[in-house]
Amino acid sequence: MHKFNVADTYKALQSEICTKLEQLDGQVVFETDQWAKPLGKGITKILTQGDAIEKAAVNYSVVNGKLSSAMQHALNIEEEDGYFATGVSSIIHPQNPHAPIIHMNVRYFELGSGKAWFGGGIDLTPHYVNESDAKEFHQELKEICDKYDANYYTAFKQEADDYFYLPHREETRGIGGIFFDHREVINQEKFEHFLAFTSDLAKAYPVIYAALLNKNRNAPFKSTEKQWQNLRRGRYVEFNLLYDRGTKFGLESNGRTESILLSLPPDASWVYQSEPQAHSAEAKTLALLKKGVNWLDLDRESEVRL
Amino acid sequence: MHKFNVADTYKALQSEICTKLEQLDGQVVFETDQWAKPLGKGITKILTQGDAIEKAAVNYSVVNGKLSSAMQHALNIEEEDGYFATGVSSIIHPQNPHAPIIHMNVRYFELGSGKAWFGGGIDLTPHYVNESDAKEFHQELKEICDKYDANYYTAFKQEADDYFYLPHREETRGIGGIFFDHREVINQEKFEHFLAFTSDLAKAYPVIYAALLNKNRNAPFKSTEKQWQNLRRGRYVEFNLLYDRGTKFGLESNGRTESILLSLPPDASWVYQSEPQAHSAEAKTLALLKKGVNWLDLDRESEVRL
Repeated sequence: MHKFNVADTYKALQSEICTKLEQLDGQVVFETDQWAKPLGKGITKILTQGDAIEKAAVNYSVVNGKLSSAMQHALNIEEEDGYFATGVSSIIHPQNPHAPIIHMNVRYFELGSGKAWFGGGIDLTPHYVNESDAKEFHQELKEICDKYDANYYTAFKQEADDYFYLPHREETRGIGGIFFDHREVINQEKFEHFLAFTSDLAKAYPVIYAALLNKNRNAPFKSTEKQWQNLRRGRYVEFNLLYDRGTKFGLESNGRTESILLSLPPDASWVYQSEPQAHSAEAKTLALLKKGVNWLDLDRESEVRL
Repeated sequence: MHKFNVADTYKALQSEICTKLEQLDGQVVFETDQWAKPLGKGITKILTQGDAIEKAAVNYSVVNGKLSSAMQHALNIEEEDGYFATGVSSIIHPQNPHAPIIHMNVRYFELGSGKAWFGGGIDLTPHYVNESDAKEFHQELKEICDKYDANYYTAFKQEADDYFYLPHREETRGIGGIFFDHREVINQEKFEHFLAFTSDLAKAYPVIYAALLNKNRNAPFKSTEKQWQNLRRGRYVEFNLLYDRGTKFGLESNGRTESILLSLPPDASWVYQSEPQAHSAEAKTLALLKKGVNWLDLDRESEVRL
């Protein structure tokens, strides 16, 4: 069976990611919780209060059941059917406000009918947007995509812009990245294609983050910058609880709450009508949290846009 | 027209509530924002970093438009129609973890068809549940209800238990209170009945809170108790963003985001699998955050339950 292949591959990827993130932090290791519920089982790995990582979560799960109507809605599919799902998802909240939040997810769904698909992505949420880091991040994602299909990066970058968006704030969650869903497995070749693609993404994830974190893990910061970090974390909470399909699917499918909500930051703040000062780094960040920014060629783009 | 009557009454209640809360805090006064959007207008009042109140918000708004399907879903009604809505909603987050969070809302809806209804309620979310305070709080709500209908308290207390509930945590948001919705205005008498009832609730709200806050505003507390307060605030965020109908309706109707999300606490925390110590005050609080607790007669109840 295909599906147990995917589950085993993803489980191994979870281990690999955790090993690399422990090396990156250098101070604290992951705690492991194996859990089992009627609908399935999983391994939750959590690292907190490290040297540079304040909270990193890496979840692996394999579940199956019958789709409720709420789950169909969350998944945006119409079939009433049994389902099998496995995936790895991870999020990292750094200590330093000058380092970004990162999120990665790869997942595989199979319905009782045999219809199956992959989804996933990586996206970055800097508290302070740095254009050259953003360019490098998108460049690295493009290189992985291009190995599989010359159209993937453009299509999946657009999907990330559309998905990681807070309409009530008119802000993107961060600088996006790539996001894809419902990439249907129509034959064995496609199955191997997507399993390899999602595996490559999961493998690249800790490597990409290491470069970004190491740049700023020891950067000096002011208390006002820490406050800004907490406000941006508040926006992250808003996205995850109001819009994130994984969160909705997890809660609707009676998943393990403590694993699903591990994506939430350690702390978050809300301040009424907080407006950054004109021409500040915070104001610049807000101005860049828009859909459709061409991070690969921002210089030319920004002349037009700003 | 009825509806402008309600809007004027609610606007005056907003002022009255703010005056009383300023007297209660004694140190900081409300800031006022008048706003206007295509769909309507409102007044947002916010008090922050007071002597005893960390954040109090009192919103008044009067809006109208056409119901989108998402709004119909949020309102739990089936009609496609134009709507008029006005209401006052308020929330108070105290500085001291031994004082409770409180929330009050009264609202009036009228559809283009002429169908109209009232809704509202008051509910309390103590960071630490104190049974005698809880009894007193419910007793005061029952007295207001009983002036209008001998069945209201029991019915609306049950509705509050059902509504202010986090299924993914298997916890009530707090000790409940009363909640009612879709109380239809079938004649002039009913209109006056519900306008008086909702006005009485709004008037009682700052008085009820004053007693609760004054009891504990200067109570000593440890840093671990402040951390517990932040965890409970995290649960409050979860409820408001995942389940609250007012929040959903507000965001879906393209309302004023900063006013809608004023219910969120100044700060909140999430800690993976945080479990209070056995027999601690925190553990006692968690054990009491259940549906169906008879706060008016807890002693007898608790013998059965615990």
